[in-house]
Amino acid sequence: MSAIAVKEVKERVIADNDVVAESVREKLKNKKVFFVNLMASPGAGKTTTLVRTIKALQPEFKVGVMEADVDSKVDAETVAETGAKVIQLHTGGSCHMDADMTERGLDSLGLEDVDVVFLENVGNLVCPAEFDVGAAKKVMILSVPEGHDKPLKYPLMFTVSDCLLINKMDTAPVFDFDMDKLKEYVGNLNPNMPIIPVSSLKGDGFDQWIDWLKSEIKAWKELA
Amino acid sequence: MSAIAVKEVKERVIADNDVVAESVREKLKNKKVFFVNLMASPGAGKTTTLVRTIKALQPEFKVGVMEADVDSKVDAETVAETGAKVIQLHTGGSCHMDADMTERGLDSLGLEDVDVVFLENVGNLVCPAEFDVGAAKKVMILSVPEGHDKPLKYPLMFTVSDCLLINKMDTAPVFDFDMDKLKEYVGNLNPNMPIIPVSSLKGDGFDQWIDWLKSEIKAWKELA
Repeated sequence: MSAIAVKEVKERVIADNDVVAESVREKLKNKKVFFVNLMASPGAGKTTTLVRTIKALQPEFKVGVMEADVDSKVDAETVAETGAKVIQLHTGGSCHMDADMTERGLDSLGLEDVDVVFLENVGNLVCPAEFDVGAAKKVMILSVPEGHDKPLKYPLMFTVSDCLLINKMDTAPVFDFDMDKLKEYVGNLNPNMPIIPVSSLKGDGFDQWIDWLKSEIKAWKELA
Repeated sequence: MSAIAVKEVKERVIADNDVVAESVREKLKNKKVFFVNLMASPGAGKTTTLVRTIKALQPEFKVGVMEADVDSKVDAETVAETGAKVIQLHTGGSCHMDADMTERGLDSLGLEDVDVVFLENVGNLVCPAEFDVGAAKKVMILSVPEGHDKPLKYPLMFTVSDCLLINKMDTAPVFDFDMDKLKEYVGNLNPNMPIIPVSSLKGDGFDQWIDWLKSEIKAWKELA
C-alpha cells in the first residue's frame, strides 16, 4: 500500500482562519463537492465509521478522503481498500487541522472526480472544535467506552457539531453508558443536533446515519 | 460538592517551558513531593484509575490531585470523595497543561501537607506529550477500546512516558485488541517502558502498578 500519497501540511500563522474557511466552503459549493469534517477522540472509531460510510455512498457518489494524523498512514491504507480516493496528511505535530492546512490538503487530493470529501481530523476533542476548516457539515463521533460525561468536559465540540454519532453501541452491555444523561448534556449545548447511535463494526444505526448524510448532500448540491 | 476550588490557569507565552519545568521539579524534590503527570485520551479511565490509586496509596501517603479540564469539575468532585486534597484547574480552552500553568496550579493546591501529587492532564494524546510540566514521572493510560494501533499515530506520547497502563482489560473480550502488536509498537519507541495491563474498574493489575509507583516514590524521596 506504499502508493498512498503523504502530504505535509504544517500549521502556518494565518491572520484569520474563518476567512480562509469561508473561501474553501464557497469553492466547494461551486464545485458541488460536499465536505464533511469528522472529529472524535483517538480510538472512537472514525476510520471504521468512514469505511462503512464510504461503502454505503459509493453506489451513488464518488468519495474522497483526507486522513489527518501526526504520524503514520495506517488509516489511509485502510480507507484506500474501499477504492475511495485517499490522501494522508501529516500535521507536523499539530493536534488539529485549520482551514489553510485543509485547503492545501484539498489541492493535493484534487476535487475533479469527487462528489463527497471527508476529512478525518486528528483524534482530539479540544482544538479541532475551534477551527472551521470550510466543511459543509461537522460530524462528531463519541464512542460508548468514553462515557456519557464528555459533553461536560469538552463542551465546544458538542456545541459546534451538526450531527453526533454514538459509536460502539454493540459494546454497551459492558459499559455504564447512560444515553439519557448524554442526551440531556448534549441538549443543553446543542438542542437540535441529531444524535444517532451506531455500531460501525456491525452496521447498526447506519440506515439513519446514511439517510441524514444523503439528505444533507442533496441540500448542499441544490445550494450550488 | 461546591467546595471544590476552581483555578483558571490560562496559557501565557513562556520563553522556555523546559526551564520552568526544571525549576518546578527541583522545588518538588526539595520538598520530597513526588509528582505524576497522568495523560490519556478522553474516556481512557484517568479518573477511575486515580481514585483506585489514591485509595491504595492513602494508608502510607498524603495525596494531592490537580484535575485539568477545559470545563466542568465533575472529575474533581469524584476524586474529592477519596478524601484527597483536590483542585480543579480550567485551562481556558487550552488542550494541554504547560509548566507555568502547572506551577500556578501547584501553588493553589498547596504542597505543605502532601507527599504525592497527581496532575490529571487534559484528555489528549498530542500536545500534553510536548510539554514537560516538571513531574517526576509521566504515566500514560491507553484503554483497550482505543485499539492497539495508537503508538503508530501518536508516537510522541508513547516515547516520553515512563509507564504505560493498558486500562479496561475487563472489556477485552468484546474488542479486537492485540497486546502483542501493542508491545511491538511501543517497544519500537520506548523499549524499557513498563507496560501494565489493568482494570481500574475491577482492580486487576493494580498490585503491579502500585508496586511500580511506590518504588518510584521511594527512589524520589531518597534523591531529595
